[in-house]
Amino acid sequence: MLGTRRQFLQLVASSVPAVVAGAAAIVPAPSRAAAAPRVNGDRLRAHLEGLSAFGRLSGGSFADGVSRVAYSEADVAGRQYVIGLMKEAGLAARIDAAGNILARRQGTEAMAPILFGSHVDSVPNGGNFDGDLGTLAAIEAIQSLSEAKLTTRHPLEVVVWANEEGIAYGSGLDGSRAAAGELRDAELEQVWNGVRKSDAIRCIGGDPDRIAEARRPTRSFHCYLELHIEQGGILDKAGIPVGVVEGIVAIDRYEATVRGFANHAGTTPMPDRKDALVAASELTLAVRDIVTREPGRQVGTVGQLNVTPNAPNVVPGVVRMTIELRDLSAEKIARLAKAVRARAREIAARSGTDIEITLTSRHEAAIASPVVQAAIERAADALGLAHTRLPSGAGHDAQMMARLGPMGMIFVPSVGGISHSPKELTTWEGCARGAAVLLQSVLEMDGTTVT
Amino acid sequence: MLGTRRQFLQLVASSVPAVVAGAAAIVPAPSRAAAAPRVNGDRLRAHLEGLSAFGRLSGGSFADGVSRVAYSEADVAGRQYVIGLMKEAGLAARIDAAGNILARRQGTEAMAPILFGSHVDSVPNGGNFDGDLGTLAAIEAIQSLSEAKLTTRHPLEVVVWANEEGIAYGSGLDGSRAAAGELRDAELEQVWNGVRKSDAIRCIGGDPDRIAEARRPTRSFHCYLELHIEQGGILDKAGIPVGVVEGIVAIDRYEATVRGFANHAGTTPMPDRKDALVAASELTLAVRDIVTREPGRQVGTVGQLNVTPNAPNVVPGVVRMTIELRDLSAEKIARLAKAVRARAREIAARSGTDIEITLTSRHEAAIASPVVQAAIERAADALGLAHTRLPSGAGHDAQMMARLGPMGMIFVPSVGGISHSPKELTTWEGCARGAAVLLQSVLEMDGTTVT
Repeated sequence: MLGTRRQFLQLVASSVPAVVAGAAAIVPAPSRAAAAPRVNGDRLRAHLEGLSAFGRLSGGSFADGVSRVAYSEADVAGRQYVIGLMKEAGLAARIDAAGNILARRQGTEAMAPILFGSHVDSVPNGGNFDGDLGTLAAIEAIQSLSEAKLTTRHPLEVVVWANEEGIAYGSGLDGSRAAAGELRDAELEQVWNGVRKSDAIRCIGGDPDRIAEARRPTRSFHCYLELHIEQGGILDKAGIPVGVVEGIVAIDRYEATVRGFANHAGTTPMPDRKDALVAASELTLAVRDIVTREPGRQVGTVGQLNVTPNAPNVVPGVVRMTIELRDLSAEKIARLAKAVRARAREIAARSGTDIEITLTSRHEAAIASPVVQAAIERAADALGLAHTRLPSGAGHDAQMMARLGPMGMIFVPSVGGISHSPKELTTWEGCARGAAVLLQSVLEMDGTTVT
Repeated sequence: MLGTRRQFLQLVASSVPAVVAGAAAIVPAPSRAAAAPRVNGDRLRAHLEGLSAFGRLSGGSFADGVSRVAYSEADVAGRQYVIGLMKEAGLAARIDAAGNILARRQGTEAMAPILFGSHVDSVPNGGNFDGDLGTLAAIEAIQSLSEAKLTTRHPLEVVVWANEEGIAYGSGLDGSRAAAGELRDAELEQVWNGVRKSDAIRCIGGDPDRIAEARRPTRSFHCYLELHIEQGGILDKAGIPVGVVEGIVAIDRYEATVRGFANHAGTTPMPDRKDALVAASELTLAVRDIVTREPGRQVGTVGQLNVTPNAPNVVPGVVRMTIELRDLSAEKIARLAKAVRARAREIAARSGTDIEITLTSRHEAAIASPVVQAAIERAADALGLAHTRLPSGAGHDAQMMARLGPMGMIFVPSVGGISHSPKELTTWEGCARGAAVLLQSVLEMDGTTVT
């Protein structure tokens, strides 16, 4: 079945990217296009390559990835490049108080806009697709519509969110959080690399004194759409070109402190040790065991672990480690966390250590609108592209927009599931397909009433 | 039995420190003392307190410990203080080419000297007993002999070794290695804290250009004795005041590099992960299990562990960790290491990681001379002090002297087994008893022929 499907995809590959002719029929736009709008995969590629120059290692190539940390000079330059592309696509960009770039295309009716876009900031040594694809595909969708002389009923609004990654200031989704009214005033006073966040926002053209004006009212958009690379390997492994995101998982992050007793590694007999690293190792394995012992897509990670004093000849005295749990279901996360805490108590008692586990951050799950999910599935079907539903294990600006209205996300395959790395890769075909599904989903939603 | 012994020790506590009268009878020194030599516990305490001022935290007290890293200003000042104490004890100090302080008291016969001493450098935030006790007890022994007007047959030579701890330049036992001809010329070129080791040696009065002159010929001493705190908790736990060291354990140090694949902690399903920290945790527990599954005093430690990239939301890609194995038997260490490597292969295969284990340093065991061990036991018996044999899990300058001639070490209890910490503690009674056993052991060895 899948094999046949894949063969079909190969057959249509030459005609992709294109919104197939039949799709236009479902668009109830009063102003009819001469031809069905088609995204231009070559232009999208050229724009992705163009954007990749900002934040590239000196002398490097596209394959070396990018370091375009939010609010940096590279970020400012990259954003200027994007504003130029908007202009080419006939859009006049404005920057809101939070530094988000917004560009609106009028619709034929006085309706709430369809909002779509992504971000262009990156992690250090990141890739050229995370955020960039969703941003440039949104502009490509607008340009395709213009070329097809097609005007939607709803106004269309392209957005480039500020500081999605959160490398700067340690907390991401800055722009979308401001739009959702979730950016705390105190955050504007935070200093990172010697710069106050309010000044960083000024650097990208925002106005921190009027940050409240960046806030969008609930239901002020018809729906929010975001195309993004999967960043995981599910689609790539399954050979499915389109992921329909069910929602963005909840994330609970804990810090565990294991306190043993630092002592001389030569003179302290094994039975007398209170080795914090031995206990921490047991806890690390317990997290893995607890998370994997039941079915589901939940994940649990000990990603950061620091040993004190961390010398070859000293029995470790203290270990500080993070434990991160993710799932669409907050109830499941709570159950897993409870099991981890219980196991930690057993480990502490057995090893003579003290283990303290503290919740350091909690992100609630953001469920994608079933109406938008269905629209994305219809869009993929119309394009003859196989699709599957899956959760997003990574956080996205879309999770903030889900607080204000119907949200949906489109994933395209990440080769090998690699992201946040120069090796991050989505094939040009994959990028073009994603842009086509985004455009078609916009058209689907333009004809869909969300109750 | 032990209870009775401990009560006896309490009864004699008021008369300790003293070399009991009967002991003098076994000293075949031609020049007879008016009274048996007795170490002065109060004077020893005053000297330990005096030395503790050098490298003490500004405004701190004895209890705050000391940071007297080798070749530092504090080390130079502490060494000057010790040279002053030697002078008070009637000894003329000289500094050899490696920076070791040496002071000789003539014997009645043209024999090889009895060499004894320790070191005065410390780890950062170290205690006031590690090294200091053995050094100041050696001077106290000389002063006691002088007060008792007793001259031994063998010349006596007190030594204060340079850079025992090896905080500076990362490799310890500098002075004793130079004496054993084990200090490589290339080491003199090493730079630490911006200072070349050759210049550091000059700072403490050595002459790196003539470093070969610090070398002592094999059998150039009758025996080498060193009093030291145990640094472990065996004597303290057992309530035994004197440890007779069987030898200094061999130490094999390995670096294990676990290579998995760093990936997004949200988007990488559990079955697809190659988590280097999960594999490293299994290896850490394997070391503990392999070392403890057979009887004996072997120890195994993962003391240092560094995760890359070490972020809460990234599956660990690489872990570098140390594995240290110690035992008196090199054969046992080899067997344990083989078992660890075998387990590492299993873990790597199961977790999809690559584990590379490299031997980074090997210290051979140094066995204490049975003749010297017996002499120390006779000395403790003569003083009415219970004793037990035990290995030294820590390295000492004595291990270098064992290459040149008969070596023996005396341990006194470390309260709670704590060392390399300001909390390092040996009671004043424990210090005085140790000095008394050292003095008596010198006298025992003075009357003993080593074949």
